[in-house]
Amino acid sequence: MNFDIDKKELLKGLVLVQSIAGRKTTLPILTHVLMELEKDFLYLTGTDLETGVREGLPVNSRQEGKASVSAKKLYEIIRELPDETVHIEKKENHWVIIKCGKSTFNLAGLDPEEFPSLPSYKEENFSKIPSRVLMEMIEKSVFAASNEESRYHLNGIFFVQTKQAGKDVLRMVATDGHRLALVHREGYRIRGIEKGIILPKKGVLELKKILGEKGGNEQIEIYFDGTHGFLRIGKSLTILRLIDGEFPEYEQVIPKENDKRVRMEREKISACLRRISTMASDRVEGIKVSVKNNMLEGSTFNQDFGDAREEVEVVYEGAPLEIGFNGRYLIEALNVFDTSEIQMELKDEGSPAIMRPSSAEVSGVSSERNSSLVGLNDQLSIIMPMRI
Amino acid sequence: MNFDIDKKELLKGLVLVQSIAGRKTTLPILTHVLMELEKDFLYLTGTDLETGVREGLPVNSRQEGKASVSAKKLYEIIRELPDETVHIEKKENHWVIIKCGKSTFNLAGLDPEEFPSLPSYKEENFSKIPSRVLMEMIEKSVFAASNEESRYHLNGIFFVQTKQAGKDVLRMVATDGHRLALVHREGYRIRGIEKGIILPKKGVLELKKILGEKGGNEQIEIYFDGTHGFLRIGKSLTILRLIDGEFPEYEQVIPKENDKRVRMEREKISACLRRISTMASDRVEGIKVSVKNNMLEGSTFNQDFGDAREEVEVVYEGAPLEIGFNGRYLIEALNVFDTSEIQMELKDEGSPAIMRPSSAEVSGVSSERNSSLVGLNDQLSIIMPMRI
Repeated sequence: MNFDIDKKELLKGLVLVQSIAGRKTTLPILTHVLMELEKDFLYLTGTDLETGVREGLPVNSRQEGKASVSAKKLYEIIRELPDETVHIEKKENHWVIIKCGKSTFNLAGLDPEEFPSLPSYKEENFSKIPSRVLMEMIEKSVFAASNEESRYHLNGIFFVQTKQAGKDVLRMVATDGHRLALVHREGYRIRGIEKGIILPKKGVLELKKILGEKGGNEQIEIYFDGTHGFLRIGKSLTILRLIDGEFPEYEQVIPKENDKRVRMEREKISACLRRISTMASDRVEGIKVSVKNNMLEGSTFNQDFGDAREEVEVVYEGAPLEIGFNGRYLIEALNVFDTSEIQMELKDEGSPAIMRPSSAEVSGVSSERNSSLVGLNDQLSIIMPMRI
Repeated sequence: MNFDIDKKELLKGLVLVQSIAGRKTTLPILTHVLMELEKDFLYLTGTDLETGVREGLPVNSRQEGKASVSAKKLYEIIRELPDETVHIEKKENHWVIIKCGKSTFNLAGLDPEEFPSLPSYKEENFSKIPSRVLMEMIEKSVFAASNEESRYHLNGIFFVQTKQAGKDVLRMVATDGHRLALVHREGYRIRGIEKGIILPKKGVLELKKILGEKGGNEQIEIYFDGTHGFLRIGKSLTILRLIDGEFPEYEQVIPKENDKRVRMEREKISACLRRISTMASDRVEGIKVSVKNNMLEGSTFNQDFGDAREEVEVVYEGAPLEIGFNGRYLIEALNVFDTSEIQMELKDEGSPAIMRPSSAEVSGVSSERNSSLVGLNDQLSIIMPMRI
């Protein structure tokens, strides 16, 4: 292995690979980055056995080959180099020599054959969707996934290909048992998710970082087999090991009889909730929401510090209702809507609330909603009530 | 207590006070901010009994008085308020009510009489120096102070008023026993530091934050009594409790016989050291420096990862010398010089190095240097050697 590479290019690739490689230190080879030189490309691979990232970078190649060195150390070295050409060469005993300007680094390596091989993919299975679509769906759902390791089947996003009103739809759903986020996008098909698969939260957050790095205007090639997801943008491949579990029957959780509809300005209500949340007690984060006469009052009580309340104008003329929620759940759900108006649908103080964009309300087709999951909206959130 | 205040003003004051107030939670009142309304000013006070900060803010006052509430909670609330006028009023049982827009907060308080009183100052003792001068002196010395709590007399900056070549000089010195930083400024006098006092590192870092907030173009009023320092910019007062201890006889530590003088470009050598430091072993951070024939070679060895070396052109024609240092100490010392050229003065591999700006060299007055602490420079650093 012997090649020259532009420092900035190499650093860009390493940033993405080393954050995966650094995770598990129990097995030394997993702290390494595999470097493979094939034709005029250097492929950097990092994996924690759950997520794998492989970045292809253009190089000036002299001799093909491969090597394995500490991802963290290589990253630290390359980051400090001047913006010049870096020469990298493999020596005996898996050592790697790095030269740039007047610097020389000898880096100890391991046998690259010991590096775990990533699952292989079939070229013909890939289909393309805009990476922006995938990014948006992740952003609008991942926050609701559980972090409790004991509930591993909730530690991810349920991703399913389905039909709605005769159209192909991609749907993502995440829930931690206290709240649920659902988002769908029309007009795309991905192979292997017809029955639904569970994307792991950690891997999804890594993927989000990579998608962010590449920019939203790329097409992403994507498919899933029974155990893994394969996602590729140009020469950047991410492989996610899927969570093997049953995702809950989320469709049954979505309330059908929430007839109290409160329309509100998203940013106004979000600012109100943030303010009164400062006085919610630290553990339960509970806030009380009261609606009547086109007014919503949020209030909190904290036995150590005091209490807070604030009124916001809304559109609501139904019967008065008081209901408790975790304030953070409401705020996080509001954060991922794009519309300036939100509709909150309530039933009673013991039933979950639905939140969705209120655009459908405006176009006068709200009667359809109860018969479908999301109606004409492409997104909803469900939040369980709590006793305050 | 009853007043109106602009939200942004209040927030600016709270930012500075609450970072002190949050520190110690053993005594509840120390987590509080004391609010005192006198004439048309609200004074906010926070203290951890070592550092005290008192900020005066203009308000629209209705009734004088004082109150004490949780600094963190008040800060969290004010931060989330819209940029409008905030109304604050004291109620019975030390409660405080805060109103802004459509929000109302009732905040539990403690008896303000329980709040520890700050040491009082004598107006006539203050003298003025530009806050920029104080800020620069702190920046150029504080990094070398010790963090080891057992060596409390080294956990600060020695600050002394002295004379040099017949002129008034302020001098700051800090050392952790492995390195020393010294800086002085001519032409200023401050009362109470003639014998030298020790400023606590934590308090100094807090002061640095406040000076940064106020901008460098202000004058700071300052003096010290036997136990405290009083520093004031406009209506912002900081009080530091001095460290009660003997600062080491630092003048004796400064080598007098370092005849090997190596002139180098500061940024070039700093970048070289950062690069090769990536391969220094994590614990000792040792790097080897070799000088000969107008060349400096830095090299490192790490038993887990490998080795690194780099050459930099310098001005040096003396006998070859190899000497080991903690790389981080060299880098941190280089960081606080302003000049583009630095002179490193060495004796042998067992003796400390001196670093100083090399401007004096240029002006041809280097012969004077051994007879004075700093010569014509206003700054120096001493770094102990280590065995590599």
